[in-house]
Amino acid sequence: MTPTDPEPEDASPPTRRRPGGRTARIRRQVLDAVLAELGEHGYDGLTTDTVAARAGVHRTTVYRRWGDVGGLLADVLDAASDDDWQPPDTGSLEVDLTALNQEIQTALTAQPPIVTALIAASFRSEKAAHAQQRLWEDRYARCEIVVDRAVRRGELPPHTDARRLLIAATAPLYHHLVLLRTPLDPQLPGQAARTAALAAGAGAFAELPSASDA
Amino acid sequence: MTPTDPEPEDASPPTRRRPGGRTARIRRQVLDAVLAELGEHGYDGLTTDTVAARAGVHRTTVYRRWGDVGGLLADVLDAASDDDWQPPDTGSLEVDLTALNQEIQTALTAQPPIVTALIAASFRSEKAAHAQQRLWEDRYARCEIVVDRAVRRGELPPHTDARRLLIAATAPLYHHLVLLRTPLDPQLPGQAARTAALAAGAGAFAELPSASDA
Repeated sequence: MTPTDPEPEDASPPTRRRPGGRTARIRRQVLDAVLAELGEHGYDGLTTDTVAARAGVHRTTVYRRWGDVGGLLADVLDAASDDDWQPPDTGSLEVDLTALNQEIQTALTAQPPIVTALIAASFRSEKAAHAQQRLWEDRYARCEIVVDRAVRRGELPPHTDARRLLIAATAPLYHHLVLLRTPLDPQLPGQAARTAALAAGAGAFAELPSASDA
Repeated sequence: MTPTDPEPEDASPPTRRRPGGRTARIRRQVLDAVLAELGEHGYDGLTTDTVAARAGVHRTTVYRRWGDVGGLLADVLDAASDDDWQPPDTGSLEVDLTALNQEIQTALTAQPPIVTALIAASFRSEKAAHAQQRLWEDRYARCEIVVDRAVRRGELPPHTDARRLLIAATAPLYHHLVLLRTPLDPQLPGQAARTAALAAGAGAFAELPSASDA
């Protein structure tokens, strides 16, 4: 592959018939290169050219398929939903939420800081911001089963707003680790989970609005 | 004032004796210009030159005193603590927290989006990040009296971790409005306040660690 010889993979019939084939492989190479560049250099070091070079893919392939850095970041975030991740299922709401928060804390404090770099990038690119929103929406939607199961076990009242409960449980992790930038606190995942579980038990997330008393 | 005639205000004895005088006035002009430029053009449109021009101050004054864009943003954030802001005091923990959250929601959804632009800038500049941390630390420290008062009124047990309660109450606002970018929800301030108050009543922020049951 030379700089003046764009890859013709999009026009190649075998590629079209094999979604796990060359097109998928090139996508994986390019998205891996985005993650590696982002982890090493942050958003400011990210260009379609450096990504193409690292991926061993022609630059026009990157331009044509992803457009710009925002398009690359958006595809990284969209690709993150192409998995079979499921939330923890331990038989207890508080323990499920604690385990979920531990996953979030691990992701937000990992080195290289890929997840926080993607969040930071979402302030630079509208495309990345929308993809980041889609990813969170996907993750929170998948987590609703944690609340549904607690309702079925009788741990929570039937009309519990799962999304509000999940936000209450997880928001302190993001607030501390992304915005306040406080040092890692091993107790935080469990404390935030316990807070949300206690609030839920006290009716904080009841869906029927019985509280206009504020 | 001409481009080749830096202002000599730092060397002028009367300025040194009057902290509310020329030095303070120039600082105010420059910081107002930073806010205006940030609101109109965001971080990417912010340069020491455009700030100096807008403030009607010589560019070398800006270079000498603030160094760079990060220094300007840090001083904007530090200056935000130079006020007599106090948290609401309504006689009820939940109502105090609701009013506090309404202030946060108003700030995070204001147009031009100065507060969110400053938060976004904190991902671009270490100086701005540290100043943003100092500002939040100042605000949360000032808010602890809300919890102290609730303890004195008997609304909360004596050993309540004020900071954890305040984070639980406010984190959903930041999570929704800064990270998840969900549409403004007028119920959110009250719901997040009520959640934290209910959790507090259920012992979620008790300082003596009686819960190692996760």
